[in-house]
Amino acid sequence: MNRVVMKYGGTSVKNIDNIKKVAKIIAKRKEQGKNVVVVVSAMGNTTDNLIDMAKQISKDKMNTRELDMLISTGEQQSIALLSMAIEAEGYKAISLTGFQADIKTTGVHTKNTIKDINTAKLEKYLDQGCIVVVAGFQGVNESGDITTLGRGGSDTTAVALAAMLDCSCEIYTDVDGVYTIDPRVYKNARKLDVISYEEMMQMSSLGAGVLETRAVQLGKQYGVPIMVALNTGMIRGTYIKELKKMEERGVTGLSMAKGVLMITVDNINYSPVDISHLFKLLATEKVNIDMISQNSQKDGLVSVSFTADDEDKYIVEKVLNKYCAEIKSAEYTIEEDIVKISLVGMGMMNQSGVASRIFGVYADSNIDFKLVTTSEISVSYAINKKDTMTIVNNLAREFNL
Amino acid sequence: MNRVVMKYGGTSVKNIDNIKKVAKIIAKRKEQGKNVVVVVSAMGNTTDNLIDMAKQISKDKMNTRELDMLISTGEQQSIALLSMAIEAEGYKAISLTGFQADIKTTGVHTKNTIKDINTAKLEKYLDQGCIVVVAGFQGVNESGDITTLGRGGSDTTAVALAAMLDCSCEIYTDVDGVYTIDPRVYKNARKLDVISYEEMMQMSSLGAGVLETRAVQLGKQYGVPIMVALNTGMIRGTYIKELKKMEERGVTGLSMAKGVLMITVDNINYSPVDISHLFKLLATEKVNIDMISQNSQKDGLVSVSFTADDEDKYIVEKVLNKYCAEIKSAEYTIEEDIVKISLVGMGMMNQSGVASRIFGVYADSNIDFKLVTTSEISVSYAINKKDTMTIVNNLAREFNL
Repeated sequence: MNRVVMKYGGTSVKNIDNIKKVAKIIAKRKEQGKNVVVVVSAMGNTTDNLIDMAKQISKDKMNTRELDMLISTGEQQSIALLSMAIEAEGYKAISLTGFQADIKTTGVHTKNTIKDINTAKLEKYLDQGCIVVVAGFQGVNESGDITTLGRGGSDTTAVALAAMLDCSCEIYTDVDGVYTIDPRVYKNARKLDVISYEEMMQMSSLGAGVLETRAVQLGKQYGVPIMVALNTGMIRGTYIKELKKMEERGVTGLSMAKGVLMITVDNINYSPVDISHLFKLLATEKVNIDMISQNSQKDGLVSVSFTADDEDKYIVEKVLNKYCAEIKSAEYTIEEDIVKISLVGMGMMNQSGVASRIFGVYADSNIDFKLVTTSEISVSYAINKKDTMTIVNNLAREFNL
Repeated sequence: MNRVVMKYGGTSVKNIDNIKKVAKIIAKRKEQGKNVVVVVSAMGNTTDNLIDMAKQISKDKMNTRELDMLISTGEQQSIALLSMAIEAEGYKAISLTGFQADIKTTGVHTKNTIKDINTAKLEKYLDQGCIVVVAGFQGVNESGDITTLGRGGSDTTAVALAAMLDCSCEIYTDVDGVYTIDPRVYKNARKLDVISYEEMMQMSSLGAGVLETRAVQLGKQYGVPIMVALNTGMIRGTYIKELKKMEERGVTGLSMAKGVLMITVDNINYSPVDISHLFKLLATEKVNIDMISQNSQKDGLVSVSFTADDEDKYIVEKVLNKYCAEIKSAEYTIEEDIVKISLVGMGMMNQSGVASRIFGVYADSNIDFKLVTTSEISVSYAINKKDTMTIVNNLAREFNL
């Protein structure tokens, strides 16, 4: 049962040289006595290039079953090439597509979720001493159609396989671990040795970008220890696991999401029906709403503010025009160039005073925030983009990030 | 049962524009009331590019299971893109990989043969009104591994599907039919309206290059009418079918194979053991021998001549050196730049005098041939490359090709 799942993303296998490098690291791991399952993504820009080809054919409504058929070839190529490269290192390797690895999925094409994995075939090959190279990001649905799991799907494949094989999962990537703050933004950020699943989920969903939230969630659910580390295999990375009480910190990290829109709708007559109508219209158009607040104005009018992704700007405007045509009194404004800053930490729920320290930093920095929302382990602020670096530096100093 | 299988090769779908053009032709066929199954190859140079990538990793002994895994992605991409293009024309389409189309194969990787096809799934989609787009060249073996069928494999897929679906098979390509002689070599060649399976097999295997021999063989075995036509769908092509006696011609066509080596081994003591030893050594090294002749020399010595593909020159030399080291008296010569000219016709077996007319043309042309072999429906001559055009012109005139 001395097994491990190692996952390499598209950047790690972007060309033949990189594939050879990765093969050497994997071979070394096998030499050290591990039974290795590798999960790999498509090489570099392969997926994007395939999508571009599809777009040249289907402009408006793309057939997503065929899109899955098309883009799943990217991983199929990388598993074959990586298996060859591992064999060139002198170890037996065998590649398996999502279909062959019996990764059963369900849902809508291009956004399937894993329903079940039958690892019998995979374990048979492991028992024969093979390094098994599995295509990430893909599976097969009830109809026998090839499916894909959406952005970050290879992480999910890796953690799901580790869950079924009862072993740990190592995610190799182009960063050497999880940092208190994105080191590209704040160069004095510290690398974390450990982080809890919950904190990592908040960091992922709030824009830290290291690991897909679904993968972390699955790791938590099945108790899979996950390590995020640099793809050269030289440096110890960050472990994601269940933390003991005493390991909890007040604030573990700061994450930020750029490209946020902030929308304010004023002068709505206070009525739960009118307010819920707004969010129903947005939901119908599949606009993802993030932070929400509601404020009373005078004369029984209320104002509602929320944030959305700026990629949805056009559709948001469409919805708001419709809403304001129906609710005559209402008026909207959209602010662009908003950034969402979040502080995350398991200790927040137990340590009083964290929130007040954060508000203190904002006050001392003389920075206005437009919205604030809290969860048990995070506090998020929507601010103007121009204030980002000031507040990041000041929060980092206050919480020693 | 108003079905047809249409097959498009890699040149016909070499880029997005060509895929769109092919989709329009297919859509038109459906509009005319046909239930259409399409078999398609990988786009343009895709397969070669993938093989090049594999060669950068595995120099000597390539893992052919992984090579099949890799190169089968080429067709998977083209079926997805072609299905999207057909849908853009307003018709329902669905793509199936070899695995999904239940094309069961057997043999060694990269050279599998089709064992069986279960068309239940395919027919279900046809019944639903879909145009079914099947990946050529690939299938799945007993172990569930993805396999490929070797060069020209998509033709075989198409004819095999037509056989199982009990319909005709149309092979669309970059030539508008089968000619009496390759029109790139002899510009006055005539396009044939019909040709028999046997003649086509001889023409294919002798180097006419329009259609894979295995596909024609399969067509004959299952009585599948095959049409070879231009991929623009505008011009009537050539039908390959069982000919009635009265349709038989003395000489139907002339095919030629370039890149032939002619090997002569002199001074072998006449002994069936010594002669068969030579061919055993060649077979062990997997050298394909084509024409063979044996001549007596004086003093009980014999001379053996045979032709081989010049790609095998190095290995042929290795074998001959070994043989001549064992059989001390033997000496060999290798002639390069040999061309094999073959005349093919179902009528040859019934019409006397064809052979003598051919010999007459050689005599009148003052051209030496080095070897001659005959089958029931063909006569082949090995000649010097420099004599090719003279003899092609003179034979064409004699037999009105």
